[in-house]
Amino acid sequence: MDALESELSNEEMILSFLAEGGSDFISGATLSDKLGLSRTAVWKHVETLRKLGYEIEAQPSRGYRLLQVPDRLTSLELSPLLMTRELGRTVHHFESLASTNAHAFELAQDGAVHGEVVIAESQTAGKGRRGRTWVSPPGKNLAMSVVLRPEIVPARAPELTLVAAVALADTLEGAGATPGIKWPNDVQLGGKKVAGILTELSADTERVHFVVLGLGVNLNTEPTDFPDDVRELATSVLEAKQQRVPRALFTSALLSRLEDWLDAWQAEGFGPVREAWKRRSTILGQDVLVRSEAKELRGVAEDIDETGALLVRVGERLERVLAGDVEQVRPRKS
Amino acid sequence: MDALESELSNEEMILSFLAEGGSDFISGATLSDKLGLSRTAVWKHVETLRKLGYEIEAQPSRGYRLLQVPDRLTSLELSPLLMTRELGRTVHHFESLASTNAHAFELAQDGAVHGEVVIAESQTAGKGRRGRTWVSPPGKNLAMSVVLRPEIVPARAPELTLVAAVALADTLEGAGATPGIKWPNDVQLGGKKVAGILTELSADTERVHFVVLGLGVNLNTEPTDFPDDVRELATSVLEAKQQRVPRALFTSALLSRLEDWLDAWQAEGFGPVREAWKRRSTILGQDVLVRSEAKELRGVAEDIDETGALLVRVGERLERVLAGDVEQVRPRKS
Repeated sequence: MDALESELSNEEMILSFLAEGGSDFISGATLSDKLGLSRTAVWKHVETLRKLGYEIEAQPSRGYRLLQVPDRLTSLELSPLLMTRELGRTVHHFESLASTNAHAFELAQDGAVHGEVVIAESQTAGKGRRGRTWVSPPGKNLAMSVVLRPEIVPARAPELTLVAAVALADTLEGAGATPGIKWPNDVQLGGKKVAGILTELSADTERVHFVVLGLGVNLNTEPTDFPDDVRELATSVLEAKQQRVPRALFTSALLSRLEDWLDAWQAEGFGPVREAWKRRSTILGQDVLVRSEAKELRGVAEDIDETGALLVRVGERLERVLAGDVEQVRPRKS
Repeated sequence: MDALESELSNEEMILSFLAEGGSDFISGATLSDKLGLSRTAVWKHVETLRKLGYEIEAQPSRGYRLLQVPDRLTSLELSPLLMTRELGRTVHHFESLASTNAHAFELAQDGAVHGEVVIAESQTAGKGRRGRTWVSPPGKNLAMSVVLRPEIVPARAPELTLVAAVALADTLEGAGATPGIKWPNDVQLGGKKVAGILTELSADTERVHFVVLGLGVNLNTEPTDFPDDVRELATSVLEAKQQRVPRALFTSALLSRLEDWLDAWQAEGFGPVREAWKRRSTILGQDVLVRSEAKELRGVAEDIDETGALLVRVGERLERVLAGDVEQVRPRKS
C-alpha cells in the first residue's frame, strides 16, 4: 500500500480518502495526518480539486466530503476506484487524440510497460477493424488503449481480442445490460454494436514485442450522436438501459475484468476464455455469411477453434476463417 | 526506362553506362549526349566518382572506362546492377547503424514503401532471433533490411522467413556455394551458419501493416573476425569457397531472387516456397532436439506444414512447433 500510495499525487490521495468515506465527513486533521501535510496545504489541494470540477463540501467542525465527481477519465478519477494490480496504474489522458491505439503504439515502442493505458475524451481519427474508422463523440464514451506485454508467439495474439471481448461483456453485464458477442470482436446489446476491439501488435515471427488493445465502448451516446449510417447498427448503454453510465466506474471495472481474464489466460491458456466467449456468442449455430478480402462463405457458424478462428460448416467441409465480417442470414431452404 | 532513369543521379547514370560498356571505352561525347550534360559536367561527375573510390580510366581520344568499383553498398554501386522492379529501388545506406531492422521499422512507420532497403556497413546492436545479437564486422558482410507490404493476415508472416531463406540459398548457390537450410531461418554452408533472417512485423489481428525482413549474410569475413564462441558455429562464403564475394553483385542478385520468390508466393501461395525449402532442408528426416521457451522436444523432423511450422514426430504424436531452436542429434538406440 505504501509503495502504491507514494506514486499517487496529493490530490489523488485526498480523493481516495474522501471516496472511502462515502457520505461521511473526513476531518481536516485526519487528512493532514494521513498525508503528512499542513491543514492549509490540504485546503489548497481541495481548492485545486474543486477547480477541476469536484464538488467537495467543507464544514469547519466536521471536515470534507465528496458530493460529485466530474465526468472525466484522468487518473484523478480512476485511481481511487482502481482495484487492479497492473492495468491502468499509469493513465495517459488526453482531451483529444487522433487515435488512442496509434499513441499507445508509440508509447510502447518507447518502452511503456505492461498495463499502461491511453484514454482520450475524443478521437479525431479513431481506428476500427480493417482500416475502418471508429466514431467517438467527445466526453460520452470510452476510447481506451492498453499496452500489454505477454510472452507469446504472434499466432496467439488473436486470442487477446477474445479475452477483451469476454471482459467487456462481463463489465456490461455488471452494469445491468445483456451483452452478446459477434465474432471476432463486436460486443452487442439487442443486436446492435455497443463496443469494438482493435488488437495491434509489434512482433517478430517468434515473439510478440507488445500488443496494443484498443477498446471503444459506447456508454452515454444518444442515437443522434451517431451519423445516419452508423445509427442503424450502433447502440449505447444509455440507449439500451435508459440510464447514464458513470464512466470512471465503468472504466475501472473493465480494467479489473480485463486483468482477471488475462490472469486466467496466462495461467490456464485459451480454454476458459473460449468457453466464456462461446456462452456469449450470438452466431454459433446460426446460418451466416462471412465476407473476407479473399472470398465469401455461406454456411453454419459451428465453433471457434483453439486459436480463436471461426469454423464454418459449408456442406461437408469445415472452413477455418481467420479474418472477416460475419452476418447472420436466413437458413437456405432445403 | 525513362521514368526509372530520371530517378537516378548523374553519377549513377554514368556508372550504369560504364558498367554496360564492360572493358570498352565510352566516349565523353556519348555520355554527354545520353545525359544531356556538357562534356565538362560529365568530367566533373567522373571526378566525383573517383573521389568515392571508383577507378575510372580516361583517354582523351577514346573516352572513359570503369576499372574498379569500391566495395560499398550505396545506391551508386547497386543501381547499375539492380534488375528488380520494386526491391532496392530506394536504398538507405549507412556506415554504421544500431540495427538495420530497427531503422527500417521506423522508416516503415513513417510511410516507407514496399521494397525500400536499409543497408549498414556495420551494426553496433544487430538483432538476431529471440532477442539475440548478430555480429557484423564493418565492410565485409551484408546487413540489410527490406520493407515489405504484403496484404496478408499476420499468421502468414512466418512464411516470409522461408521465402527469404529460399532466396538466400538460391543466391549462395549462384555464387558457387552449396547451401542448406536449418529450420526456421539458418542458412548454412558445410553445417555452419552463413546467413540469418529476422522477420519483424507491425499488424492488427486481421492484417499485416508492414513487414521488415532483416537479412544478415557473412560474405568476406575471416574466422578471426568472429568472437571465439561464434567462430565454431559460423562461416562465411570466403571461408567456404576461399574466394572473395563482390558484395554489390551479391546484394543485387539477392534482391532479384527475393523479388522472384515474393512474386511466386503472391501468385501461387506458399506451396512452391515450401517445396523449394524442403529440397534445401538439412533436418528433415533427421533426429532432432527442439528447444523452445516452453518445452524441449526430441523426435524426428518430419515435415513443415502449410504455415511453415515444423512437424516433429514424437512416438505416435506429431507435434507442431511454431518457434524454437533445432539441433540435430544422434538417433536413440531402439
